[in-house]
Amino acid sequence: MTTYKLTYFNLTARAEQIRFLLSYLNVDFEDVRIEHEQWPAIKPTMPFGQLPVLEIDGKTFNQSTAICRYLAKKAGLAGDDEWESLLVDIAVDNIYEIRQVIMNYYHEPNEEIKSKLRDPIVNYSIPFYFDRFEKIVSENGGYFVNGKLSWPDLYFVSILDHMKWVIDVDLVDGRPHLTALKHKVLAIPQIKSWIAKRPKSP
Amino acid sequence: MTTYKLTYFNLTARAEQIRFLLSYLNVDFEDVRIEHEQWPAIKPTMPFGQLPVLEIDGKTFNQSTAICRYLAKKAGLAGDDEWESLLVDIAVDNIYEIRQVIMNYYHEPNEEIKSKLRDPIVNYSIPFYFDRFEKIVSENGGYFVNGKLSWPDLYFVSILDHMKWVIDVDLVDGRPHLTALKHKVLAIPQIKSWIAKRPKSP
Repeated sequence: MTTYKLTYFNLTARAEQIRFLLSYLNVDFEDVRIEHEQWPAIKPTMPFGQLPVLEIDGKTFNQSTAICRYLAKKAGLAGDDEWESLLVDIAVDNIYEIRQVIMNYYHEPNEEIKSKLRDPIVNYSIPFYFDRFEKIVSENGGYFVNGKLSWPDLYFVSILDHMKWVIDVDLVDGRPHLTALKHKVLAIPQIKSWIAKRPKSP
Repeated sequence: MTTYKLTYFNLTARAEQIRFLLSYLNVDFEDVRIEHEQWPAIKPTMPFGQLPVLEIDGKTFNQSTAICRYLAKKAGLAGDDEWESLLVDIAVDNIYEIRQVIMNYYHEPNEEIKSKLRDPIVNYSIPFYFDRFEKIVSENGGYFVNGKLSWPDLYFVSILDHMKWVIDVDLVDGRPHLTALKHKVLAIPQIKSWIAKRPKSP
């Protein structure tokens, strides 16, 4: 049996999308959550000095999006043909892009700059992306791609809490199709069960 | 016959990886290069307000990495099985990551901040990533993945000139395996022919 060991911090952030997919696949995985004090010793041992990493049968892989795509293929959530996989990959990268905008704000070390960054993100970038997501989901039968569940749907829902915590905006509020998608994903038995049992994180 | 129409600026930047793959596939493509004066009128018509986009048989797609993965599958350069595709996707995302670090420097509007950003990128980030790339390529028979050509190799070489122009560092200089990979990719007949005929850009 394949063994999976995920290493990250005690955060949802960049790892929750992997945890969602592993849970969806109904596979057991070791969910290692290191303390920030441990990080300086662990960092030099990581392939590109970053977390999360997933060990699959003892081999260590970085890059959360690539890892998710691999797991999504196993789950049948990566598109049924090349066209659908293209649409799936585009949806993921569109979500990733606005996530990065919000995370760049979070990581800005200069408080003066940071305070000026929030307004354009809240008033321009978030509506720009999330209104488009709302339209895409409304036109695709309640999902990001072709009227059926694929991994952009799981990815999208997996980051919502963290995004809300970072930028203090409920990203699906007032967007009924995205709200419905969120509830649909959270009602998937494996996801529901994962969320009920996952460790509390900030 | 499938028609391809690429729209971007007269730059290599984010589109050259797509042009490399279309050339590798030996397909005709329309290579539209808009002037910056045209951009304000075109921007609102783009799916997420950005370029490049690729029209395939009249349908418009954004997200250059997703587009490249689609084309790479057609070219047999996206991995022969799920494991190899995972390694290919990781390699691409590792390259993308350091590219973003360099592009964030380029796009920094504040000259004072920008002047402070260059040193840590040149002295820390670039060696950190490119020494790892050199090691990976040295351990994989002269390619990023499994001793054979895959699209990370094309992607890597397609961005080198632009990265050098932005940060004024030759990223393969002093790294013999990356230098050899660069020459190998540039010697692929379709790539060689594309570079000979492509329009001059800054």
